[in-house]
Amino acid sequence: MTGPGMRTVNLVLAGFGNVGRAFFRLVQEKASACRDQYGLDLRFRAILKSGGGFHTGRLLKTGDLFRDGAPWLDGNPAWRPGFGAVEALASSEPGCFIEGTPSDIRTGEPGLGHITRALHAGWNVVAASKGALVVAFKKLRRLAAERRAALRFSGAAAAALPALDVGVYSLAGSEITGIQGILNGTSNDILTRMGNGSTYEEALGEARARGIAEADPSLDVGGWDTACKLLLIANSVLGLELELADVAVDGITRTTPDDIAAVRARGAALKLLGTCERPEPAKPWRLSVGPRPLPASHPLHGVSGTEKGIMFRTDTLGTVTVTGGGSDPRATGAALLKDIIGIYRVAA
Amino acid sequence: MTGPGMRTVNLVLAGFGNVGRAFFRLVQEKASACRDQYGLDLRFRAILKSGGGFHTGRLLKTGDLFRDGAPWLDGNPAWRPGFGAVEALASSEPGCFIEGTPSDIRTGEPGLGHITRALHAGWNVVAASKGALVVAFKKLRRLAAERRAALRFSGAAAAALPALDVGVYSLAGSEITGIQGILNGTSNDILTRMGNGSTYEEALGEARARGIAEADPSLDVGGWDTACKLLLIANSVLGLELELADVAVDGITRTTPDDIAAVRARGAALKLLGTCERPEPAKPWRLSVGPRPLPASHPLHGVSGTEKGIMFRTDTLGTVTVTGGGSDPRATGAALLKDIIGIYRVAA
Repeated sequence: MTGPGMRTVNLVLAGFGNVGRAFFRLVQEKASACRDQYGLDLRFRAILKSGGGFHTGRLLKTGDLFRDGAPWLDGNPAWRPGFGAVEALASSEPGCFIEGTPSDIRTGEPGLGHITRALHAGWNVVAASKGALVVAFKKLRRLAAERRAALRFSGAAAAALPALDVGVYSLAGSEITGIQGILNGTSNDILTRMGNGSTYEEALGEARARGIAEADPSLDVGGWDTACKLLLIANSVLGLELELADVAVDGITRTTPDDIAAVRARGAALKLLGTCERPEPAKPWRLSVGPRPLPASHPLHGVSGTEKGIMFRTDTLGTVTVTGGGSDPRATGAALLKDIIGIYRVAA
Repeated sequence: MTGPGMRTVNLVLAGFGNVGRAFFRLVQEKASACRDQYGLDLRFRAILKSGGGFHTGRLLKTGDLFRDGAPWLDGNPAWRPGFGAVEALASSEPGCFIEGTPSDIRTGEPGLGHITRALHAGWNVVAASKGALVVAFKKLRRLAAERRAALRFSGAAAAALPALDVGVYSLAGSEITGIQGILNGTSNDILTRMGNGSTYEEALGEARARGIAEADPSLDVGGWDTACKLLLIANSVLGLELELADVAVDGITRTTPDDIAAVRARGAALKLLGTCERPEPAKPWRLSVGPRPLPASHPLHGVSGTEKGIMFRTDTLGTVTVTGGGSDPRATGAALLKDIIGIYRVAA
């Protein structure tokens, strides 16, 4: 596709860690596919990291950011100390702001400031950071609606697993009556390894060695990462405005190989499950996270290793389950790209 | 939502069998949810069946179509013999034409005529009938693009299982490198029952008794229903323009309980699988349907009974699998409603 059918989308990316870099590289790799298949010309105008930003006034290219394959800061003429979201948002016509900083789930910053500014400035927003959305879901959704801006966050919810797409679009018009999800790959990998004979400490060590677990894995194994994702999914899909304090959270830190063996002896599998349910149709939703046995017939029973999965029960479309999705930075970057295409593609 | 934010969508429905009637009832049931959640006011302007149509000049309501819970034809003032697609499409401002007749997969009629006329008249189209799309996919897609009309057909592809949504939207920007699907609930139910000790004839009889299999189940057990769905999914998701003759089709009519037992003894499950693959990245795609053993680790291994499932392999988002979805007429009706909402909702 060329000419008048082509749509230019200015991009500002905040966060240039593993996910941000993978996303930047992916957009370069997929540039011609985006033009040919979706009529979209994606152009990086600025990339922000702590302390400043990359900005040249031209389209940012790989050579502006990397030297010898590594991020290039010292002596890089594209690097501008102190260049931040305000400057970036003013540097081009509004397009799509991609929030990918390591946001704090207590304060939501720095993502909260970024997203708020971007929406006020008329930019659409695609987020990989959970913090801002966990802290200020209601406020950000309302601000986006007021500004008629898109606010998408697959990358913050379950990334390559299309939990939000299925819940929001594929189940539109049905009433969702319950949600269950295995949403944290690290915890699921640890439970899978414990089921294969490792102790918790061994399984955690193996996950760290493979780069799956962080140095501080407490958000993962404590259930908080699952709780954040569940909260974002439930608020989006069920039209709620709950907060993290509304989720009853338990993790797998006290789970033993004996617990797993006992569950398995009954033909089930122990999973760190996020659950949205309500005791009766008109009652408030209850969100919880904790280790739960899933019988062999459960659609999420076979979700193992770093895989994720989510199951929606509905009143008209039956039960719909989606599983899989890559869990590396490139897959998260691909989830960001998917959201951008979803905003700008000409629907058919 | 009320007032200026509300969007009226005129509907013409062709086909008033099980699916058409379930769809009509569902739209009545979900009318207020469609207004409140999506700002859509869905209005039936005409409903066509063989020999004529229901049309009053006003919005069609339940009382215009049913009496004592049964479809009402004799003495119904809303019934107009000879009233067809031409008259229906001229009877209101263009909206969404829902094609749900029992179309023939050789000629595509009567759906092909309906859809062609509707697109020419500036209507969007949502189809539950496979025939027209199987026969004339390329022509209809191009016509829709020329007319800038939407042409959606979840109901013809895998209905409540969101195969097209996931393939087209959730995997946008990634390259799909392979597709495998269990797409026919009747065949899967028969294979499941044969795995539990029934002969093919017994399993088919049970499926008929439960209303799952048609009197003539040859499209299902012969693999043709799977082939049609696979063709529509592959053409949509991979951007192909293949025809039914391009699909190598085998069914389960010669499958024996011994075949199933032999596969199970190896820890696998025998499934009627639709497959899109290519031997090398640049080579043409190969579409085939036939009974295939799936190992226990395969994401579709556990799809049993009347359930369906589809797995997409991608270059960037990993492997994404979606399973489940109701298979009754109400679920198919809900898939039509989902497509309508997808066309008209204000994206966010």
